[in-house]
Amino acid sequence: MIKETLNKKKESAELGFGSKNYNESVRFLNQDGTVNIKRKVTDKHIGFDMFHWLLGIKWGQFFALVFFSYGAVNTLFAIIYFSIGVDKFGGIEAGSGIENFLQLFFFSAQTLTTVGYGHIYPNSSLISTVSSIESMFGLMGFALVTGILYGRFAKPKADIQYSNKALISPYNDITGFMFRIANKKQNELIETECQLVLAINNLETKKRDFHFLDLERSKINFLPLTWTLVHPIDDKSQLYEVTQDEFNQRDGEFIILIKSITDTYFHTVYSRMSYKASEIAWNAKFVPMKQMPHKDGSISINLNDIHSYDKL
Amino acid sequence: MIKETLNKKKESAELGFGSKNYNESVRFLNQDGTVNIKRKVTDKHIGFDMFHWLLGIKWGQFFALVFFSYGAVNTLFAIIYFSIGVDKFGGIEAGSGIENFLQLFFFSAQTLTTVGYGHIYPNSSLISTVSSIESMFGLMGFALVTGILYGRFAKPKADIQYSNKALISPYNDITGFMFRIANKKQNELIETECQLVLAINNLETKKRDFHFLDLERSKINFLPLTWTLVHPIDDKSQLYEVTQDEFNQRDGEFIILIKSITDTYFHTVYSRMSYKASEIAWNAKFVPMKQMPHKDGSISINLNDIHSYDKL
Amino acid sequence: MIKETLNKKKESAELGFGSKNYNESVRFLNQDGTVNIKRKVTDKHIGFDMFHWLLGIKWGQFFALVFFSYGAVNTLFAIIYFSIGVDKFGGIEAGSGIENFLQLFFFSAQTLTTVGYGHIYPNSSLISTVSSIESMFGLMGFALVTGILYGRFAKPKADIQYSNKALISPYNDITGFMFRIANKKQNELIETECQLVLAINNLETKKRDFHFLDLERSKINFLPLTWTLVHPIDDKSQLYEVTQDEFNQRDGEFIILIKSITDTYFHTVYSRMSYKASEIAWNAKFVPMKQMPHKDGSISINLNDIHSYDKL
Amino acid sequence: MIKETLNKKKESAELGFGSKNYNESVRFLNQDGTVNIKRKVTDKHIGFDMFHWLLGIKWGQFFALVFFSYGAVNTLFAIIYFSIGVDKFGGIEAGSGIENFLQLFFFSAQTLTTVGYGHIYPNSSLISTVSSIESMFGLMGFALVTGILYGRFAKPKADIQYSNKALISPYNDITGFMFRIANKKQNELIETECQLVLAINNLETKKRDFHFLDLERSKINFLPLTWTLVHPIDDKSQLYEVTQDEFNQRDGEFIILIKSITDTYFHTVYSRMSYKASEIAWNAKFVPMKQMPHKDGSISINLNDIHSYDKL
Repeated sequence: MIKETLNKKKESAELGFGSKNYNESVRFLNQDGTVNIKRKVTDKHIGFDMFHWLLGIKWGQFFALVFFSYGAVNTLFAIIYFSIGVDKFGGIEAGSGIENFLQLFFFSAQTLTTVGYGHIYPNSSLISTVSSIESMFGLMGFALVTGILYGRFAKPKADIQYSNKALISPYNDITGFMFRIANKKQNELIETECQLVLAINNLETKKRDFHFLDLERSKINFLPLTWTLVHPIDDKSQLYEVTQDEFNQRDGEFIILIKSITDTYFHTVYSRMSYKASEIAWNAKFVPMKQMPHKDGSISINLNDIHSYDKL
Repeated sequence: MIKETLNKKKESAELGFGSKNYNESVRFLNQDGTVNIKRKVTDKHIGFDMFHWLLGIKWGQFFALVFFSYGAVNTLFAIIYFSIGVDKFGGIEAGSGIENFLQLFFFSAQTLTTVGYGHIYPNSSLISTVSSIESMFGLMGFALVTGILYGRFAKPKADIQYSNKALISPYNDITGFMFRIANKKQNELIETECQLVLAINNLETKKRDFHFLDLERSKINFLPLTWTLVHPIDDKSQLYEVTQDEFNQRDGEFIILIKSITDTYFHTVYSRMSYKASEIAWNAKFVPMKQMPHKDGSISINLNDIHSYDKL
Repeated sequence: MIKETLNKKKESAELGFGSKNYNESVRFLNQDGTVNIKRKVTDKHIGFDMFHWLLGIKWGQFFALVFFSYGAVNTLFAIIYFSIGVDKFGGIEAGSGIENFLQLFFFSAQTLTTVGYGHIYPNSSLISTVSSIESMFGLMGFALVTGILYGRFAKPKADIQYSNKALISPYNDITGFMFRIANKKQNELIETECQLVLAINNLETKKRDFHFLDLERSKINFLPLTWTLVHPIDDKSQLYEVTQDEFNQRDGEFIILIKSITDTYFHTVYSRMSYKASEIAWNAKFVPMKQMPHKDGSISINLNDIHSYDKL
Repeated sequence: MIKETLNKKKESAELGFGSKNYNESVRFLNQDGTVNIKRKVTDKHIGFDMFHWLLGIKWGQFFALVFFSYGAVNTLFAIIYFSIGVDKFGGIEAGSGIENFLQLFFFSAQTLTTVGYGHIYPNSSLISTVSSIESMFGLMGFALVTGILYGRFAKPKADIQYSNKALISPYNDITGFMFRIANKKQNELIETECQLVLAINNLETKKRDFHFLDLERSKINFLPLTWTLVHPIDDKSQLYEVTQDEFNQRDGEFIILIKSITDTYFHTVYSRMSYKASEIAWNAKFVPMKQMPHKDGSISINLNDIHSYDKL
């Protein structure tokens, strides 16, 4: 039985998801840590936040966008140059309209990137004016693109591998909720802290309650291998004597909030995850990670093993 | 009646605005969060802080300034080149003074942006010296401009939508001061915290007092939709049994200080706002936000609705 | 009389300056906030930290260094090109040795900045190899220079104006130590905090003691105008009933540590200062700052007035 | 005798190294602060983190990699240009295949760096297309390289010199564990904090225990000279009455975690170190650092002296 009354002893958790009773089963956090409540703002006065969007899209999309924009800007300038007149350029080899346009397109590319070979060159003030604006525009545009490129590259993040399943299983003399994490990256994560929240339907109030759950240990200094986080389900826990059926019926969700510091630039980073009923194994035990020592003193672990557990 | 004596129990708030009794009605914070007390420093030894100014001006001003500077620098170098002599250049087509000057202007632009087509080129040591300084100056200048451009673009900020009006209305069994906020941007804000301060004239001391007001909840982990912040006006509140007339007469102002973390780069950001008497609706109720679910599981909200309330 | 015994009640301050009894009068912090104990590390294994040095030198020095390096690198490459042979270049106009060298010097500058006019161009593989290395070197070198340039420009700092003198004067019914600060810059400083430490010779132990002194108010949210910080010299203060003679004889120094947040990028910044005996006015009163209101609602203050006080 | 029972009074330390009983002697932290447990992740789905790797490698490796990549990219594009045809270029001097290839290689370099002399230039649409892609690729690639170059240069770090040996020696009336640190860099470190952890084998449980040890002083505001950190081994210490033999036999390790703020950009930085049995001198005394005053008021210290101690 889930003990709502216990909640009165400690501050009830407020994650900001509200506490409506959702008719269907609800997942607040996706497994990749994104918030499942997508806000679509329909206020026309609010501009689109391009910067965060460009930092967040996939690499393929990003490069496609850069190439497309490069082509589009050059086409635009080629049209301007073409409409001013091909005869206003020096070094151009007169040809068909298409050929001339292509030469102006490439002149534009050479101007935008400031490569400026010079075999084609502006031979009138108007063309010179446009091309001097284009080269300046190119410098600023590429600076922005490469700034975002670097920003994407250098973006601090906690790349944490969570075990696919969390377990609710015998633990010491009682029961425990447990899951495992590891650092996927080669750089160290230091001062890693974890908060565990239970979201569950309250059958009386018909609302969704949130409870902070104590962790046996909520902070470690280093994360060189794996870390098993345990919430002991004792008589001080909201989950004391809960059954799998009750948990599923009340649509429980474990929400995990992790805060850490990357050891390269000492950025504070955050990671989040959630386990829903279907991702919890009852009465199981994690298979201890195999640590293969090497001659150089290093230890290999296989992060695929982090998911392994045995049914009891 | 506003209970000044209650203030003795807790540390009185000090925002840094001083506590003079201002003759006219005073607003400490503008609704866009800027401080209303503009400091004009008249000490001639203190340089103008160009960097912060360039980060803060409007985009139109910024680009106008860049274009103007680009033109000015090129004009300056064209004058230098012209005064050294047009005949010191190779590839130039002699023409009228104006035509020559224009060609040198565009040569300067090609040098500053390092596009360097080369159909015009320096043909004397003096010209070469000036143009090698110009290209170096151009590299550094454009780096600064594009750095500031990126800095403006990447500037972390909490883009919080506040409800136009705050309410003082029945709340549970008592009265409450309440307002709503939402995140305008697509990126998440996490660990959002709020502080609420009341600035009000003290009729006895003739000074302006500041009181921290408790919030029912002052911190949430996520802000996916809207958040209604409530100060319960119970017998522990300075506003207990205050009337609208008394509040207006004493020129009250609610000052809101919000601190949050953006989820892209994990920057800590701050936002501020204030509500004056005219922006407070008495005896009203916020219209609950309509949440339109989509097939993909996302939820739309219309941020214009954040302002809606009904008179009771 | 300075009450060393009082120190036992609170944790004694440790600033890291050690506690030797210095024979002569000692100043720990200079008035510009730099630490007066300059460490000269004579360990030859420890590299010079060029990055911090380049961020710290004066603007004049920085630009002189950039120009000098630019000249030196071009001279170096000109020597290499010259020794390979002027005849290995296309477009060069043969002249005297000096003239040839100068042309190669400018070719180098055009390559380093990637302006590349092309009227002189490499016409052998060896020259091409060197110039392709030079242009790559130029890109990286200028990126570093402009990165440092931007770093200098964007360096977060608390630009705080301290009153020239601190006062020890009657304050309310007792005595107080007080000084004034203001923000020199146009951007706001928020969440400003101050720590006050007294460094003074202990006549018994012959060592230098450090005591934290309480401030009446140690934190404010905004700093739009000036802030007068006050340490009340009551019977809980180490300075209770101290006389000017005793203070001077024991070589007292007030050390001020300020922490704040700039409102542009929300960087945490630190500022420090110290007042020695000669910078303390006894029995004086700060002249209140004149606040000149403007039609647009802004208020002018003259930061020169921050230093003004009247002898009592 | 090491008093494990004392541990119950305070939270036992958890560094994240696990608590297995290692058969052989184990060192958790190397003396350069790197974690000795190297994780080799063999999950093929986990990408190599190039960014952190490029920030971490030696300068020599970094530049070798940049040069090699520059050569490789130019070779690649030269092959593409060559296969399209040398006759599609203007300005090229026909020669042997090798000579032609070299000219195209250098054309590529001039395009990649955007130096673009133009004595060789693309004379067909296909070549122009490839070269316009190359120049764009060059701009973005060099931006990334120079971003990483600057990132390496500007990387915040606490460059702390630790004494080679730590001492366990008489201290005041009791015994103390002590070591010395200093700042190797010219910039100041402020608000320096230290945590001390003892890792030691528990003979009963056969596991490795971790204990936080109190420091006499764990934080200082400045670190202008050296700082001797002391853990007093009194009856509240886990090491009370420990002997050298017992300590060695139980494979003790002192782990030091330091947190500080650099005074240039106010970055928070971390440093770590560990002392194993062989790096501890018993019954010794640090030789006080010689402070050589200079005429300009600065003080020289020789950081080599930080290691000096005398056997008692």
